[in-house]
Amino acid sequence: MKTSTVKGTKDFLPNEVALRDYMQNKILEVYQNNGFSRISTPILEDIENLNKSEGGENLNLIFQVLKRGEKLASAIQDQKYNELCDMGLRYDLTLPLCRYYANNKGKLMLPLKCIQIDKVYRAERPQRGRDREFIQCDIDILGSDSITCEIELIYTTSKALMSVGIDEFTIKVNDRRLLKDLLLAVGVKEKDLDSVCISIDKLDKIGIDGLKEELSEKRLGDEVVTQLIEILSVDMNLDRMKRFISDKRIVEELQQIISAVTEISDGSIDIKFDLTLVRGQGYYTGTIFEIESKKFGTSIGGGGRYDNLIAKFIGEQVPAVGFSIGFERIYALLSKSGFKIPEEKKKIAVFYEIEDFVSAYKNAEQYRQDYKVSLYKMPKKMG
Amino acid sequence: MKTSTVKGTKDFLPNEVALRDYMQNKILEVYQNNGFSRISTPILEDIENLNKSEGGENLNLIFQVLKRGEKLASAIQDQKYNELCDMGLRYDLTLPLCRYYANNKGKLMLPLKCIQIDKVYRAERPQRGRDREFIQCDIDILGSDSITCEIELIYTTSKALMSVGIDEFTIKVNDRRLLKDLLLAVGVKEKDLDSVCISIDKLDKIGIDGLKEELSEKRLGDEVVTQLIEILSVDMNLDRMKRFISDKRIVEELQQIISAVTEISDGSIDIKFDLTLVRGQGYYTGTIFEIESKKFGTSIGGGGRYDNLIAKFIGEQVPAVGFSIGFERIYALLSKSGFKIPEEKKKIAVFYEIEDFVSAYKNAEQYRQDYKVSLYKMPKKMG
Repeated sequence: MKTSTVKGTKDFLPNEVALRDYMQNKILEVYQNNGFSRISTPILEDIENLNKSEGGENLNLIFQVLKRGEKLASAIQDQKYNELCDMGLRYDLTLPLCRYYANNKGKLMLPLKCIQIDKVYRAERPQRGRDREFIQCDIDILGSDSITCEIELIYTTSKALMSVGIDEFTIKVNDRRLLKDLLLAVGVKEKDLDSVCISIDKLDKIGIDGLKEELSEKRLGDEVVTQLIEILSVDMNLDRMKRFISDKRIVEELQQIISAVTEISDGSIDIKFDLTLVRGQGYYTGTIFEIESKKFGTSIGGGGRYDNLIAKFIGEQVPAVGFSIGFERIYALLSKSGFKIPEEKKKIAVFYEIEDFVSAYKNAEQYRQDYKVSLYKMPKKMG
Repeated sequence: MKTSTVKGTKDFLPNEVALRDYMQNKILEVYQNNGFSRISTPILEDIENLNKSEGGENLNLIFQVLKRGEKLASAIQDQKYNELCDMGLRYDLTLPLCRYYANNKGKLMLPLKCIQIDKVYRAERPQRGRDREFIQCDIDILGSDSITCEIELIYTTSKALMSVGIDEFTIKVNDRRLLKDLLLAVGVKEKDLDSVCISIDKLDKIGIDGLKEELSEKRLGDEVVTQLIEILSVDMNLDRMKRFISDKRIVEELQQIISAVTEISDGSIDIKFDLTLVRGQGYYTGTIFEIESKKFGTSIGGGGRYDNLIAKFIGEQVPAVGFSIGFERIYALLSKSGFKIPEEKKKIAVFYEIEDFVSAYKNAEQYRQDYKVSLYKMPKKMG
């Protein structure tokens, strides 16, 4: 039998689980203390729901679960190889949340402020070194289109990170509509919007020259590319953005979000507008955010507004916005940095001779009021 | 899109998750306080590992995960319909634990006392009303063949149940070898052992007459059936068992387990020998146990010794024994009984007018030292 875990998944040793549990409990505590309540959904979702969910690239990464019994036999017999599966493992917690709301809306009040801390699955190519099973920590607010939601989510997520000792980070915010408006304003055609966004998303990896090269290949017109590169070359602030786009309200809301988070946190949160922030999921409709660890230069969380996703289940629009912490990233950071868990109860061991086991056990029971007590047979040689 | 969960799985509302988390935390606390440490393994396992794992009927209930990319394409092209999948969802926590030990033995000390509280999956037929996704709470001791393990597991599990208010239960113990020895002694042939065991397992459902009928159909010989029914008709105690079987040591060990648990618990744990206890898994090699709720007449946990399962991974024998709590059963019991969670921090709400959001938020922050605080926009009409 094979002893290793399946590719892209991990076993965790006792001291690793202790740290992971500690971190999850701290994050959960902050979320709850800020008025959010935990919900839970199955790891398995209907395969059609997953496939129709506008999850961007993630849709190519769904683990599919084989049908069983007669349904499987008939799919094979009819050579319907696209119908071998009826379920899949969720690739994020947002699609399940929307289905959850649709399924339980009679029992839930809006606005719903909810927490999900759970496992998700993506069939990433193993050589990319990415996990195929990982934990996300999400908070979402359903049923409100007010920017107070964004403010609450950003500040609560920041506090959750700080509660586990992650304190040097930058929060970048943008709005899906802003970038698209700008692209249209400089002459990018509607049909090229997604493709151009994907290129811009890579700016921090390929640099401005790389971006120029990539855009030039897309036949957008020389003038369009020149103007776009000019805009993206300078540090773009929100006031300057107003010159380019028609809907000033979007800019003003981003300004309000940034100033409110700054004020509430007494300036302790580093939050800024980033025009080049795109994010992959197709379901985002408005604000989008991402947290970058300054110490490690990697993204440790992200989210955004998805006002139309719930409508796919219930026909009526329910505005929604969420923020997700990439638990595995921050676990890796803490783990590497040698973080020590503050222990509440010390561990001790009681040793016994086999014939005195019962009295040793009774003895251990006494100590269990103050310690975590493990029983071990007296070794022949005591080290 | 479909709003319901996939068959046999459930959404949990905020108050339900609160109870489930409370229960898991209490059980975990008891396990840890008794010297066990939590470990974690992936939900996905290699499909061959699962198929070769001697999990009895559970092997027919494995959810299989479809291969991806070229491997899938070539399995379809070659019409190898038994090779469409490379992974499966674990059906219990015992097989993953054995693989885990094999994978990490260089970093683990024996005896290893470990905790697993995690989700498992079984493709039960939905009409049986069984869950397809559910949580098990397991403790296991690896690396010791001493009955002190059984004693520790039984008493620790009992304390975990009592910590969440489940206190009226009976623990039944038996030994795989005992029942088989007895069957051989009365003349059942080796080849019929498993089949007869499966019938005996149903005794509490079909009654002694039903059992007689079922055994008669198995061509065991009239005298064999008569003698067997005679033995199973009376309350079989361990002293009487000694008359029938050759290896008295097995009987004596069961007696020691029962008397030690009784003594350590000052008689508060109801534990008894049950010759008709069988349990389904093929991997059990010695003691087996089950907990029955007296109030509800259902099994709420079980376990046993599986001394040969780890050898399938590493070639060398590592004795092992475990005890699992059926979390969903006890959750259902507590949920129905209207159990109230003792709250540490009360929940309050701060209402705000939209223009005063920032100052309301700052105000809420003050209260968060003592309360869980949620922010809501002032409703037009206050109820």
